[in-house]
Amino acid sequence: MKLLIGNKCYSSWSLRAWLLMRAKGIPFTEHLVPLDEPGFKEAVFAAAPGSGGTVPTLVDGAIAIWETLAIAEYLHETHPEAGIWPRDPAARAHARAISSEMHAGFTALRGACPMNLGKRFGTRDRGPGVARDAARIADLWRQARERFGRAGQGPFLYGAFSAADAMYAPVVTRLDTYGIAVDPAAQDYMQAVLALPAYREWLAAALRESWIVDQDEVDEPALADLRQP
Amino acid sequence: MKLLIGNKCYSSWSLRAWLLMRAKGIPFTEHLVPLDEPGFKEAVFAAAPGSGGTVPTLVDGAIAIWETLAIAEYLHETHPEAGIWPRDPAARAHARAISSEMHAGFTALRGACPMNLGKRFGTRDRGPGVARDAARIADLWRQARERFGRAGQGPFLYGAFSAADAMYAPVVTRLDTYGIAVDPAAQDYMQAVLALPAYREWLAAALRESWIVDQDEVDEPALADLRQP
Ligand SMILES: N[C@@H](CCC(=O)N[C@@H](CS)C(=O)NCC(=O)O)C(=O)O
Ligand SMILES: N[C@@H](CCC(=O)N[C@@H](CS)C(=O)NCC(=O)O)C(=O)O
Repeated sequence: MKLLIGNKCYSSWSLRAWLLMRAKGIPFTEHLVPLDEPGFKEAVFAAAPGSGGTVPTLVDGAIAIWETLAIAEYLHETHPEAGIWPRDPAARAHARAISSEMHAGFTALRGACPMNLGKRFGTRDRGPGVARDAARIADLWRQARERFGRAGQGPFLYGAFSAADAMYAPVVTRLDTYGIAVDPAAQDYMQAVLALPAYREWLAAALRESWIVDQDEVDEPALADLRQP
Repeated sequence: MKLLIGNKCYSSWSLRAWLLMRAKGIPFTEHLVPLDEPGFKEAVFAAAPGSGGTVPTLVDGAIAIWETLAIAEYLHETHPEAGIWPRDPAARAHARAISSEMHAGFTALRGACPMNLGKRFGTRDRGPGVARDAARIADLWRQARERFGRAGQGPFLYGAFSAADAMYAPVVTRLDTYGIAVDPAAQDYMQAVLALPAYREWLAAALRESWIVDQDEVDEPALADLRQP
């Protein structure tokens, strides 16, 4: 299988699919198409005619799948033993609900704090919408872990790492790099995601990139630019 | 199973889940909670604590599922013979991709043309975003039917009615009631959805409702108010 992704520093949707496959040990070749560069759409449409022209896009022989949730369901079907979704039906239904809520939601947080793994920003008031989104996210994480977490199986939302953790990974990085306060249980969960070897691998590659995507750079002085030598 | 829905005249997400269950013959009791009335959130949270507080919400014993795509996946798992998604894996992947693209997309069309089954409006220029959305939608329908349609199995996107048709049903009604031009193949598909007995049942109930949801009423004179006697 071949996975088309955008820049690792900025492409939050790409991170979701890539992290899910890497953390689950599903082999794939990676094809990075830089966002905001000429030829982006052409490269995606060449691999996936008729698709949304977005990354991630997964190509498996004659099948090209765009949309991150559709990719997760495809991996769930093709790799039933990988534990893409939690095994318990009630946990799985909850995991899909919170993943779908992520897919179309949290627009205040996503608008104010674009994923940018290269910079760290200071804590500041980013408005009531961001605070509401952060509180809802922490509540969903708490629900998942209290109702369905299997501590013996791992520190993730439903115990073992699943597609729901992948869907929230770019939220974890935003809360982290923009210094948005969350409760201690949410912080513990964030540490587990940030410590994941697959995430460390993605981050290391992101910090080696030199592309700047202007629309994902906020108008705030950074505390640290991790890409400066 | 119990399905919480909003007003039939206006609640586009409710229509998707309701139509899928009804068209597939999955038994359920319906619990209508009027949008925009006091007590809406309380009623939804009473049935589904911790959920998004949105309709549709499906309650199956101790499991409460919000988010329409998560409900579709739950029905797919609990009713494997119902054909919630197309049976062919490539068609199923495509159906999920276009359903996910619907879930977070087509914001120009959705913003300019809220679902309102009670009124018909005249054709007019609604701006380039709406035209682009309508063209993309018609292209996705064409792709589905040309690549995966099974004429012998029905006139829907993948032959038999599936969750993808349910996801696009409120798009069909918008293109229809706001008089947005699409190509003849797309029009044929729209006719098939609008003629579905389950949709006729929903529409008849919608036209018996008297609630007015102001934010879903556009500032345009209607050609016809179907709810006036
Ligand atoms: N709803 C899509 C979102 C994908 C998306 O917007 N990806 C961005 C990069 S993070 C992209 O491809 N942007 C380029 C473009 O839209 O032209 C999904 O779930 O995969
Ligand atoms: N992403 C949700 C959207 C559901 C939604 O927004 N439903 C609307 C009615 S069509 C609603 O419940 N609105 C009331 C509210 O948000 O308070 C889904 O897929 O089900």
